[in-house]
Amino acid sequence: MAPGGNVRIDVERSIQRSADESAAEIRAFLLERKIFALNLISSPGSGKTTLIEALLARFEGKGGVAVVEGDIETEIDAERIRKLGVQVRQINTRSSCHIQPFRLLSVLREMDLSTTRLLLVENVGNLVCPAEVSLGEDARVVLLSVTEGDEKPLKYPLAFKTADLLVITKTDLLPHVTFDVERVRRAARAANPAVEIFEVSATTGAGMSDFLDRIEALRAAKR
Amino acid sequence: MAPGGNVRIDVERSIQRSADESAAEIRAFLLERKIFALNLISSPGSGKTTLIEALLARFEGKGGVAVVEGDIETEIDAERIRKLGVQVRQINTRSSCHIQPFRLLSVLREMDLSTTRLLLVENVGNLVCPAEVSLGEDARVVLLSVTEGDEKPLKYPLAFKTADLLVITKTDLLPHVTFDVERVRRAARAANPAVEIFEVSATTGAGMSDFLDRIEALRAAKR
Repeated sequence: MAPGGNVRIDVERSIQRSADESAAEIRAFLLERKIFALNLISSPGSGKTTLIEALLARFEGKGGVAVVEGDIETEIDAERIRKLGVQVRQINTRSSCHIQPFRLLSVLREMDLSTTRLLLVENVGNLVCPAEVSLGEDARVVLLSVTEGDEKPLKYPLAFKTADLLVITKTDLLPHVTFDVERVRRAARAANPAVEIFEVSATTGAGMSDFLDRIEALRAAKR
Repeated sequence: MAPGGNVRIDVERSIQRSADESAAEIRAFLLERKIFALNLISSPGSGKTTLIEALLARFEGKGGVAVVEGDIETEIDAERIRKLGVQVRQINTRSSCHIQPFRLLSVLREMDLSTTRLLLVENVGNLVCPAEVSLGEDARVVLLSVTEGDEKPLKYPLAFKTADLLVITKTDLLPHVTFDVERVRRAARAANPAVEIFEVSATTGAGMSDFLDRIEALRAAKR
């Protein structure tokens, strides 16, 4: 038993409760505005911002997309998105290893989302804590790059268990690394039989249109 | 202000205090036994276990090495090490995103470290929480693979600020990715002017002996 364990558990329960309440508020907020929201989760450097750039290119001229970037520090990702002329807000979480729902809610309330149909939330680069917290999203997208190793669904089960879509990224690097795509598919489906799995390379474009088609269909389904 | 914020801060302070106490106990435990300990920190899949395998190969026949593997779930990494005939323990942290010092202390007390001179602790794959917690180590090794992106020292400053050694891994993939090694070196040194930086490829072996030499020298210095 860790010292302070009982008090900690009580406080964690209370924090979890308020996180769930904020997530429910976000869900209602999005529903009212018919905004379809993705929560992107992965390790640092798996290609979340790059995937967002591909989504922005696909939805250009097809109705508003807004982006919220989560990082411990820096505005680097928000600046990447801002250059594309897209509405974006950066949340710097400082010591928190995930975007806290109450912070996302407060940012959403400040944004002009009157024409937004798709909200892309890039969580802090981390396969652990972001998986524990709902942001009221419609779909959770977990990314795994082929350079990270094919045992990751076993080691970080919650992220894969809670993923609606799993995107295996950087597939152009497969010839240079040891990574068994089938092993990942099997483990991901064992954790979550309903998960939809995509294999993409942002560098070559391979597989990207299947993924983008699917997001477009999911967005269209939310009316 | 997050709901429950004040209580949370008090509890976090008390947890931090007890973590610091456990870290101090580990430090005393290691000092008494003249064991030199490394704490390896990185994102999932940056090559921590592979670097440990290289260290084990270097120290084979040069005095005892023991390993502690930290993961949310699974014994995969411990099994990789166990196959090499090395004493290893796995800590499964479940919901915790880093090895907690009190758990490491309890594992160390159970191990036979009578001939051990080098202890390798592989932390949970995560660039955030493990950086916040001392495990009483002699040196902290932070790994960054070239596939993760060269802006990571800016985004995850604490890991780089607290690193004694920064190991840039998978340099054999540099021709296939966009990664400015000099940018990383500059940012890492800005965060911590004393950091020692190594560039290695476990695949080609490039740069590995410099890193291993340095660890051997550091271990020898602890008497």
